[in-house]
Amino acid sequence: MSSSFQTIALIGKHKNPGIVTPLSSLARYLQSRNLTVLLDNLTAASMDEDSYPAVAMEEIGSRADLAIVLGGDGTMLNIARKLAPFNVPLVGINQGRLGFLTDLSIVTMQQTLGAILEGRYITEQRMLLYAEVARSNVTTFGGLALNDVAVNRGIGGNMIEFEVRINDEYVCLLRSDGLIVATPTGSTAYALSAGGPILHPSLDLVALVPVSPHTLSNRPIVVGPDAAVEILMQRTAVARVHFDSHSHFDLEENDKVMVRRSPHRVTLLHPSDHSYYRMLREKLGWSGLPRNPT
Amino acid sequence: MSSSFQTIALIGKHKNPGIVTPLSSLARYLQSRNLTVLLDNLTAASMDEDSYPAVAMEEIGSRADLAIVLGGDGTMLNIARKLAPFNVPLVGINQGRLGFLTDLSIVTMQQTLGAILEGRYITEQRMLLYAEVARSNVTTFGGLALNDVAVNRGIGGNMIEFEVRINDEYVCLLRSDGLIVATPTGSTAYALSAGGPILHPSLDLVALVPVSPHTLSNRPIVVGPDAAVEILMQRTAVARVHFDSHSHFDLEENDKVMVRRSPHRVTLLHPSDHSYYRMLREKLGWSGLPRNPT
Amino acid sequence: MSSSFQTIALIGKHKNPGIVTPLSSLARYLQSRNLTVLLDNLTAASMDEDSYPAVAMEEIGSRADLAIVLGGDGTMLNIARKLAPFNVPLVGINQGRLGFLTDLSIVTMQQTLGAILEGRYITEQRMLLYAEVARSNVTTFGGLALNDVAVNRGIGGNMIEFEVRINDEYVCLLRSDGLIVATPTGSTAYALSAGGPILHPSLDLVALVPVSPHTLSNRPIVVGPDAAVEILMQRTAVARVHFDSHSHFDLEENDKVMVRRSPHRVTLLHPSDHSYYRMLREKLGWSGLPRNPT
Amino acid sequence: MSSSFQTIALIGKHKNPGIVTPLSSLARYLQSRNLTVLLDNLTAASMDEDSYPAVAMEEIGSRADLAIVLGGDGTMLNIARKLAPFNVPLVGINQGRLGFLTDLSIVTMQQTLGAILEGRYITEQRMLLYAEVARSNVTTFGGLALNDVAVNRGIGGNMIEFEVRINDEYVCLLRSDGLIVATPTGSTAYALSAGGPILHPSLDLVALVPVSPHTLSNRPIVVGPDAAVEILMQRTAVARVHFDSHSHFDLEENDKVMVRRSPHRVTLLHPSDHSYYRMLREKLGWSGLPRNPT
Repeated sequence: MSSSFQTIALIGKHKNPGIVTPLSSLARYLQSRNLTVLLDNLTAASMDEDSYPAVAMEEIGSRADLAIVLGGDGTMLNIARKLAPFNVPLVGINQGRLGFLTDLSIVTMQQTLGAILEGRYITEQRMLLYAEVARSNVTTFGGLALNDVAVNRGIGGNMIEFEVRINDEYVCLLRSDGLIVATPTGSTAYALSAGGPILHPSLDLVALVPVSPHTLSNRPIVVGPDAAVEILMQRTAVARVHFDSHSHFDLEENDKVMVRRSPHRVTLLHPSDHSYYRMLREKLGWSGLPRNPT
Repeated sequence: MSSSFQTIALIGKHKNPGIVTPLSSLARYLQSRNLTVLLDNLTAASMDEDSYPAVAMEEIGSRADLAIVLGGDGTMLNIARKLAPFNVPLVGINQGRLGFLTDLSIVTMQQTLGAILEGRYITEQRMLLYAEVARSNVTTFGGLALNDVAVNRGIGGNMIEFEVRINDEYVCLLRSDGLIVATPTGSTAYALSAGGPILHPSLDLVALVPVSPHTLSNRPIVVGPDAAVEILMQRTAVARVHFDSHSHFDLEENDKVMVRRSPHRVTLLHPSDHSYYRMLREKLGWSGLPRNPT
Repeated sequence: MSSSFQTIALIGKHKNPGIVTPLSSLARYLQSRNLTVLLDNLTAASMDEDSYPAVAMEEIGSRADLAIVLGGDGTMLNIARKLAPFNVPLVGINQGRLGFLTDLSIVTMQQTLGAILEGRYITEQRMLLYAEVARSNVTTFGGLALNDVAVNRGIGGNMIEFEVRINDEYVCLLRSDGLIVATPTGSTAYALSAGGPILHPSLDLVALVPVSPHTLSNRPIVVGPDAAVEILMQRTAVARVHFDSHSHFDLEENDKVMVRRSPHRVTLLHPSDHSYYRMLREKLGWSGLPRNPT
Repeated sequence: MSSSFQTIALIGKHKNPGIVTPLSSLARYLQSRNLTVLLDNLTAASMDEDSYPAVAMEEIGSRADLAIVLGGDGTMLNIARKLAPFNVPLVGINQGRLGFLTDLSIVTMQQTLGAILEGRYITEQRMLLYAEVARSNVTTFGGLALNDVAVNRGIGGNMIEFEVRINDEYVCLLRSDGLIVATPTGSTAYALSAGGPILHPSLDLVALVPVSPHTLSNRPIVVGPDAAVEILMQRTAVARVHFDSHSHFDLEENDKVMVRRSPHRVTLLHPSDHSYYRMLREKLGWSGLPRNPT
């Protein structure tokens, strides 16, 4: 059976020696299937491997039909944001501990990937957020997030205070440790720890999850994907906006953080037997098996 | 200005003497605008009023262009379920305490209704759920819910246990006081008390909110409107399924409760200045005013 | 080494065939140590065993120096309440799944009990609650609870409403699915599922944990052991008070449930290496090991 | 009637012009009762008042029989920590918004204080915490807290990780935004926002409240006042320990934060009709009045 994936990019967790052997093995396997292998240049640098072209992320974006990421969910988030503008499908392999985004096991990766390359897979589209910070009405910072955009108090000892607006309508004045604006992908990450709901990843939704709010009735709100969420900083010693817990920007009073859906989407490929609910059960420790098999 | 609403039904909270005077006044007001007034026959019975035809709910459904409900959210839920098959738009007037569904004040009702009759209003569509109970694969009970379908332990002193499936996929075995399957409309009712998120009412979504789950990581899940939610009763001394806290049915072991979106929708009309977030602030006691007016 | 325990009672989970072999083995072991063995008469009935005197719980209470309970936490709660007036120390053996109260493993029970019989054990005192229901100022029902006294809505579809007083002082009017009045022992049971805190079992405290309260700021309150907690039923279709999810009593409007500390205490014996926090980690699935051993 | 309070210290919120007039009026009132008035020297500086001796906090501590604090709960916490070693009773007057610690209204302060000076008051003792940071086994920082000692992630975008021990026993490895170690006084402050229980202030207890914990079953734990709580920092980009959200210290990997009960206590005086539960109702917005007056 012929594969629609001809050029495959391999990307590993940055500065992680454990990826060298499995990625080399994977590259040989792909080559044995007559596929073109590209190595992410940062990955190649830590692999001491020159059998395959080491290319920049942009080149992966323009040339690859599929990108295989080996690492944890953090690595996957990172690569997904970078490749988002190019719409390259992603497959995530974890190094031992099942991740929400890295659901292939390193132990069985060759077999699972083989099936995917032969067209037996499930495709999932995930929405991203794009947030900008405006200071005195001038955009001073911006970035993508696949999980969440979170405004948090910084190192100050006090709660921060900000006004929340959705589509230009005033929602509330929030005094809290912060506010997480999460995608369905992010709903099982930081937002879940802060009391947010689990949003099925097939949905395009945005959850606003307050972190330790002063007013106890300030509860998570779920709005549609076209909501423009505006966070207007009030009194705040130190506050920061975080993008996927990866990049950040320091906020000042009167700064405005505007969060919208990104026009880009991330495409994830999963094995045919992938089950989101089984992943939830495993990751969240839901015990119990069905008693009534169907 | 001519109104597209020519026939208006008036419906009051059942057996509530407080509705008599305002409903009579409202009827006269509508008549003065040359509109045809229909009185719900149960309402008419408690009003001792014979100037207007007293008709059954089905006739209201087939004849009325608009139904005005005077009472609390409970009354509104009740009427909305009954009129759901007919798609008559609803306006809710509260008798003093703002309701999520009854947002017109009795004090200013004439003026607010006047504006609505002249075409100045906001239209909202709300999804409904339909749930059926199958016993030995035979459907034995069914009903509509605008807020929620909730399986709760009955008077037994122990948690109940049931298997949850969504679209034929196993989700989890839940030991808890119950499970609330809520619409966005119901997300600010019982589901909110049990820890569920607020879902914006413009969305078509279903929240599954466990009530006091034994496994602490069993958190609310939000799924799309086409999810078929199946609750399969396991060991359970006494359990009951409730529809909008209104009707109910006693469950036995191996009973299957199947919850789906109803093909019907409820249409609510609100004054032009209606704001869902302002209603949240008032109902949930979110303090604070915006500091930066726009 | 001589033991201060001369007469040992054996009690098994009611109507559970799995207890027969281990209890017989245990009885022989105790006899081999020249100890007097008493069998709970209900247990003896299901064991078909006549080598040991089968006696009523009261006789165990007056004669035994130690009672060994084989079963789950539910069995242990049951026996603990019955033996509470007699102050017989209790040891709990679980049949496979670690219990909060049954912390000895059936696999290693002989060895662990041996150590206990030789005086190597930790003693724990646990407080109990006693609750009475007064109807028209006449006490109509009363009972002990080691975990909790819970007022819950019964099979009605609506929240119940009641007034809470502590030491004759008005606390709040609660609209909710119920209120759990829990001991530290009960703090890891139903109360934990409803959002209550974990109270260290060495403390004498009472937690009032509302179940799905209508007012979101109605949060768990912890008061001292001498608090007299009064629950005065208001509007309520059907409500019930439960004692350790075991016995119950149906409540009517204006019924008053008065919960106080019981003068009795339960004495639990644990192996010398017992650790409450380790038990929490195992039962609640707290992952992670200490990185810095001490 | 003679008062046991002869020397009264007046202390106002720092740099707050609103305190000048009421404090001057209060000073004259006290003088008219033949009492000796001391002014906190920082307060005096902002008052431009030289009719009364302006003294340092230590002198207030050694000379005053009573300290009256005008401001919010933050001011009261600040003064309470400073005066803790001297055991001077404190009375708190709020400038408009009821505080948990400042329960006298500025409007009626003269009358309420009159009653207190004549001996009609309720005395409350509140426990304090003392925490130290050890780096390489050397104590490098220490401080008192009346509300809480909180370890929080600083400006880093990731959760922090630390090991918790109580009385040298390992409790758990916590990955979270932080951990709040709170007194009963602090249980209605930051700890409540993070999901902790309300602890009656008459109790000597310590609540450990995790902030947005990664493991969802990491729930608040309440331990006795003699618990030595040790927080041992693991991987952490940036973390900080805060004392009453007032002072703080930056933590590094392997730093150990040790929290114990302070030997000092704070004595608060309240009007005779003071009710903790009424204060909870007002501050937390618990609606409803008792229906059945007693």
